[in-house]
Order: sequence, then structure tokens, then C-alpha cells
Amino acid sequence: MKPSIPKGTRDFLPEQVAKRNYIFSTIRSAFEQFGFVQIETPAMEVLSTLTGKYGEEGDKLLFKILNNGDFLAKADHQALEEKNSNKLIPSISKRGLRYDLTVPFARYVVMHQNDLYFPFKRYQIQPVWRADRPQKGRYQEFYQCDADVVGSDSLTYEAELIQILNLVFDKLNIDVSIKLNNRKVLFGMAEVCGLTDRFMDLTIAVDKLDKIGLEGVKDILIKKQIPEEAIHKILEFLSLKGLDQLESFLKDSETGLKGIEELKEVLGYLPDTINNFEIDVTLARGLNYYTGCIIEVASNEVQIGSISGGGRYDDLTASFGLKDMSGVGISFGAARIYDVLEELNRFPATVIKGVQALICPLDDSCRKYAFNLTTTMRASNVLVDMYPSAAKMAKQLKYADKRNIPYAVIIGSEEMESGILSLKNLKTGEQHKLTLDEIINRLS
Amino acid sequence: MKPSIPKGTRDFLPEQVAKRNYIFSTIRSAFEQFGFVQIETPAMEVLSTLTGKYGEEGDKLLFKILNNGDFLAKADHQALEEKNSNKLIPSISKRGLRYDLTVPFARYVVMHQNDLYFPFKRYQIQPVWRADRPQKGRYQEFYQCDADVVGSDSLTYEAELIQILNLVFDKLNIDVSIKLNNRKVLFGMAEVCGLTDRFMDLTIAVDKLDKIGLEGVKDILIKKQIPEEAIHKILEFLSLKGLDQLESFLKDSETGLKGIEELKEVLGYLPDTINNFEIDVTLARGLNYYTGCIIEVASNEVQIGSISGGGRYDDLTASFGLKDMSGVGISFGAARIYDVLEELNRFPATVIKGVQALICPLDDSCRKYAFNLTTTMRASNVLVDMYPSAAKMAKQLKYADKRNIPYAVIIGSEEMESGILSLKNLKTGEQHKLTLDEIINRLS
Repeated sequence: MKPSIPKGTRDFLPEQVAKRNYIFSTIRSAFEQFGFVQIETPAMEVLSTLTGKYGEEGDKLLFKILNNGDFLAKADHQALEEKNSNKLIPSISKRGLRYDLTVPFARYVVMHQNDLYFPFKRYQIQPVWRADRPQKGRYQEFYQCDADVVGSDSLTYEAELIQILNLVFDKLNIDVSIKLNNRKVLFGMAEVCGLTDRFMDLTIAVDKLDKIGLEGVKDILIKKQIPEEAIHKILEFLSLKGLDQLESFLKDSETGLKGIEELKEVLGYLPDTINNFEIDVTLARGLNYYTGCIIEVASNEVQIGSISGGGRYDDLTASFGLKDMSGVGISFGAARIYDVLEELNRFPATVIKGVQALICPLDDSCRKYAFNLTTTMRASNVLVDMYPSAAKMAKQLKYADKRNIPYAVIIGSEEMESGILSLKNLKTGEQHKLTLDEIINRLS
Repeated sequence: MKPSIPKGTRDFLPEQVAKRNYIFSTIRSAFEQFGFVQIETPAMEVLSTLTGKYGEEGDKLLFKILNNGDFLAKADHQALEEKNSNKLIPSISKRGLRYDLTVPFARYVVMHQNDLYFPFKRYQIQPVWRADRPQKGRYQEFYQCDADVVGSDSLTYEAELIQILNLVFDKLNIDVSIKLNNRKVLFGMAEVCGLTDRFMDLTIAVDKLDKIGLEGVKDILIKKQIPEEAIHKILEFLSLKGLDQLESFLKDSETGLKGIEELKEVLGYLPDTINNFEIDVTLARGLNYYTGCIIEVASNEVQIGSISGGGRYDDLTASFGLKDMSGVGISFGAARIYDVLEELNRFPATVIKGVQALICPLDDSCRKYAFNLTTTMRASNVLVDMYPSAAKMAKQLKYADKRNIPYAVIIGSEEMESGILSLKNLKTGEQHKLTLDEIINRLS
């Protein structure tokens, strides 16, 4: 049997794990610095918690878990006879794998509301699963790193989340643009055009501006049979410069003006040191759920799409029976951040905490001595390992090479008697006679 | 809809996550200090990788994932007609959830053998899933923390793993006994009794000694129709003191003597500072797979069963087509370690990195000032949070109390003008007028 793993899933080699941990711990530190606390939810949710939350397409992408035991005994007879797979599911599967961290969080807030305080600032770094068709850069299992605040509509939190985005990408040494918009501004645009009933069509077209240009947006709007006058208005909207022009354009839309007011308040909180963000009125992320601010982050050096994003949503928990829970959150795309750092060669060398020296016993009589030496050096916080047998020295040094271990300490009877050890640099071949203390000093 | 989670699964509150992270990071540090590197494998494995690896009972406890799309189209017709659930599974489920970390590791070693070096020291800290009947202390999703070395039969690794066990429980401040045995010693016992064909029956009885005593073991052996002479031998075996008596008892069993030799070699490597272990010839953990040393750790203060264990196994990867890969490993039972620390009240207070002070704006005109103050204090590594609106002070302080925040800094127009702030101790009610620098000093 030749082993394999399911399509769309991945094994991680030690170096990849170390690099991912570097990203996670950078994000985690920033979340904690801003007072967010970590929670965890189970990989499996009750299937009905998940279905209907991600649209029809999302339901198809949920991984469903087969009930254990004799599941056919309780299977829906009619669905079986009709060979209707979708209809059969609820009777043979009670559980599904987590599809994102937001719906489980909403469920969690409702279930544990008496153990929590509000506003509640939580972060969560866990894998999610989606039965997407696997392709380059898209996997069926991947980590999400989310921070959300629920139970307050204060815009100080929008400003905090932008500070976190700025801090994380600064620490990761990735040059980014943080784009900011407000769904109410987009709604105001539709209102000014007299086309609030075509809100989705309008914003989807507008969102494509940076990819297809003004003419492209115009073509889409024409194809969607938007009246000429409205198209004219929208092109005007897209050419506005600055919040004052925007305010004047939206002067007849109460919602639009409220959106501008919110944007201004958020900008007002941000310290002057944060200067890598811009208002982008075409930004239209997550229109199905965001109701206020919308945030998106892109790399300025690598073309890879958004590497972080977020926004404010009202009624996060309404579908679980708890109303009026306004929330705002951001999510880091760890996989894309990984790819950016890899492409730019920006992972710090210190991310890989490699073994510094291999202790090599020359013959069996040296093994106990070598083992003790290894123990002593580890106790002094020097990362060393011992070759476990008195194999030929060439084999031992080849092993050190494969593990990228830069030094070897070869232990023979002479070293055991004198206590003077040889530290061999495996790159240059240089060798130095040193005491144990000197070696520890040199390697730490 | 009242939300719930599947039976046997758990949500974790922030304090629980912090405590678990403390356990994981202690274990992780020890693994890394001894040269183990981290790998990760996907939650989902190809179902056939898992089936048949954990016995018939294990197969029933695997969580199987329903194929996506119209799974009935390719379902086994005959199995459907017969209503045979077990027979139907392979045609409607290609994937299963990881049941432990050992089988995925074996699969990983075979798949990535060209990217690895041997001996390969890996650790892995990931959740596993089992459809066990939920009960107190037993969950369907739980973390395993494993370290294994493959590709060497050197007993230096047994000694290293014992050092790791010792280090971790020392750091966690848990008083433990590390018990050591060797499967070959148990086989030797069976050989001396002339009953190698009854090996399992004998060892299962012997393993129960500490629960049911000598008489109890005797009763079991009688019920199993073990000949009187052999029972006599076994009772003698159980009363032996020290390795010398054991050696004399096993003098006619080559395998048994080899087992003693191995135990002696391992003990020979261990530094004198490790003195919390003992040879226990009745220890019979994992007989189906361990072939050499067997290790088990129990708390000396809390009766909860083993909180860690491990052993050596030959041919870890044989079922995936790679022979002669001897391995040895240990696994930490994080959930039980958590329970022990909780019961003994041994989690250090520093595990919970709580917010130190809540910045409270008296009215709306103070929000921007309070926000800036919060930003400045965070930049000085003081963990603070700001109440996001100018709510009534009683409400703000109640929020601080719920979050266990010990101090409040109340910001009104007076503070904004003078820059002299009030630091209020929320336990004692004491209040001190201080500059920002003084507050930062006091809180860091």
C-alpha cells in the first residue's frame, strides 16, 4: 500500500511548521497586547449550526461526518429510495467540520453569555475545513486567525483593529496598504443614484475598478442595464478625491453621511505614526454580512490579493437567538502571509532553532561520556544532539550535514581523559581544542 | 434555535485556553531542548490509512467523513439493499479523522523519507478524534503531545525520553513516579513458565497486581486455567527484588536476559539527579505494539491513572511498506495533566496574562485622549484596555471587575488639562495621583 493524503490537505515539514509558528506567534502577541483573549471551539459542530450560514454554495462545501454505528438503520427511507443524497444527509450525519471561526464564535457567545463580559474581545487561531476544489494556494484545511469584539458599537475598536493590522505587518516586515471603506458610503452611492434596489449590482461593479478600470466598470453597468444617468453618477463617485468631495456627493443620503462620519471618527483615533492606510470607496468586501466599516490589507510588493481583512457586522448572534450584538473583527490569512514572506525571503533566520552541535562518540566506550556531555550542554541551554551510536565518523558527519548542524564535538578516549574537546566547524573544517565551558560560551 | 455542541466535545473559555497553552508550551520547550522538531499532519487522512490499525474496536471509533456531492451515485448498491452500514462505508466515505498521532506519523515518514534524515526526532501536538462514548474525563476530541525517534535502535533515546518526562513534570511542579519495564522481561517470564503461547493472558493478569494484589492475580490465573506450577513461578516473579534477583530468575530465557540488559543500559545513561523512577516488572502497557522498553508515568499525589507513557516499537512503518524502522516514543496526556494541576491548584498565577488597568473616559470629549493614553501604555508593554464609550462610571468599573482588572485610570477634563492621572486600586479603593510615566513604572 502506497501511502497518500487526501487531495487538498497538506503535511508540514519541520521548517514549514517553524515558519508558520512564527506567523501565528506574531499575530497572537499583537492580539494579546490589545487585550484580546484566546478561546477554542471544537472541530466538529452540530451540522445544523453550520447549514444555511454560508449560502447554498457554502452548504455544499461543508464536510459532513457520518454518524457512527449502524447509521442506515435511522436513514431517511424516502431519500434512499429516491437516491437523493442531499435529502439523506440530515438522517445520517449530525456533525460537520468547522467552516470558519465566525459562526462557531457566534454560537459560543450565545452559549456562554453568562460566563463572558461584554464588550468581549476574543481571538481564535484554529484550522477550518472547506471542500473546495483544490488548486494552487487553496487547500481544504487551513488556519484562520481571527480577532473580534462583540457587544459594542464603539468605533474605537475599528481603530484598535487597524492598529493591530499595522503592528503585525510591521513586525513581519511586510509593506502593506490598509484600505478602509464603510458599507454605508456604498449604500449612500446607490441612494444618490436612486437605485438602492440595485445595491449589490452597483457595488460588485464598483469593486472591480482596480482590476478593469473606469471603462470596464462602465461596461458592466451598461450590461446590467443601469440607467445612463446613474452610470454617470457612479463614474463621478469613482473620481472623487478626499472625504470633503465625498461628503458633498453624498449630501442627500443620510446613510451615506453617517458612513463618512464613521470613517472620520476612526481616522481621528489613529495615531499619526500609522500612515499606510487609505480610504478606498470602491472596497466592497463581505457585503452580505458587513454593515459598517470594511477593512482590507494588500501587500505592496507581491500580487496575491488581500492578506487580511475585516469589518463590522450587526446582529452576529441573531441566528442563535441573541439580538443586538454588534461586532467588529479582522482575520489574518496565514497561508498567503506565508507565501508573501517566502517570496520576499523575509523569514528571519532565527525562526529555525537548529541544533548547534552534534556530539559524536568515536567508539562504544565513549557513548556514556558523550551522553553526559550532551545532558550538561543542554542544561546550559545550548541546543545540541548526540549521534546515538558509534557509527563511522563519516556517517555521523553526514548526518550532521543533513540536519544542517554547523559544529561537531568528537569524543574519543583522548578527550575523555583530558577533558579537552575538539569543536569542529563542519563548513570550514576548522577545529579548535577547547574546554567544555569554552564550547558552551562559544555556542550560546 | 438553542445552540449546542456535539456530545463529547468542548468549548474552552479564555482561562482554560491559557492553562492548556501553559502545559503545551512546557512540553514543547522540553521537546525542543532535546532536539525534537515539530511536524503537522492533516486532520483528515485517507480512510484506508486508518482502518485496521487500531483493531476492530478502533475501526468503529473512527469518525468517517461523508464524500461531498452526490455520494449516493457511487454508493455500493448491494450494501444499500442489504442495509449494511459497515459494508457501505468505503463507497460513501474516503476520509476519516485522525485517531492518534502515531499512524499518521508512520505514514508521514514513509511519504517524506527522502526529505528527512534518520534517526529522525519529531514531535507533534495536535488534536485527535475518537467516537468513544462520552464520560467524565473522556472526550471525543482531545490533544496528544507526542515525541518519537525513528530510524535507530539506540537505547540512548529511551534515556532521553525519560529525561524529558522528568524535566516536564519538574517544570510543571507535579510529583510523579516514572515506571520502567521491558516487554522482553515479560516474555522471559512467560518463557520461564513454559507458557509463551499464553503470553497475553499472563501479562494482563500480572499488570493488575497494584490494583488487586497477589491473591487477585492468582485468582485470575486459576480462572484462566494456568497450570499450578506456572502460577507458582509467576508469584515468585512478582516477589523479586532488584535486577540481580530478576536476572537469576530469567537465567534460562535469552529474551528475558536481553530485556534486563536493555534496562541496565538505559539506567546507566541516566544522570544521578533523576531519582523518581523505578523498574516495575508488572508494567504491561501497549503489549500489542511495544517490543522493548515500556514507560509509564503516574502522579504521586492524585489518583488518576497514567498521565504519560511510551515505549519502543519495531517496524513502525512496515504497514506502509518501509521495513526495519525501529522507533521509540512518549506521549503526554494533556487533559489528565490539566486535571492534576487543577486539583492540586498548581497552575502558576502568571499563566493568566490579565489586563492590568482599564482606562475609563468620563465623557465623550475624553475618548480620544483615553484612546491615545491606551496606545502609549501598550507601546510601553503595559497590558491595558480602554472602556470604549463614556458610559456611567459604575458601569465601567463593574466591567473592570468582571474582567478581573485590578486598576482603573479615570480620564476627565481635569486629567486632560494637567496630565496628572488617578490610578485607582479597584480592590482597596485607594487612589493615587501620578504622571503617566509613574503609572507605567508601577504597572510594569
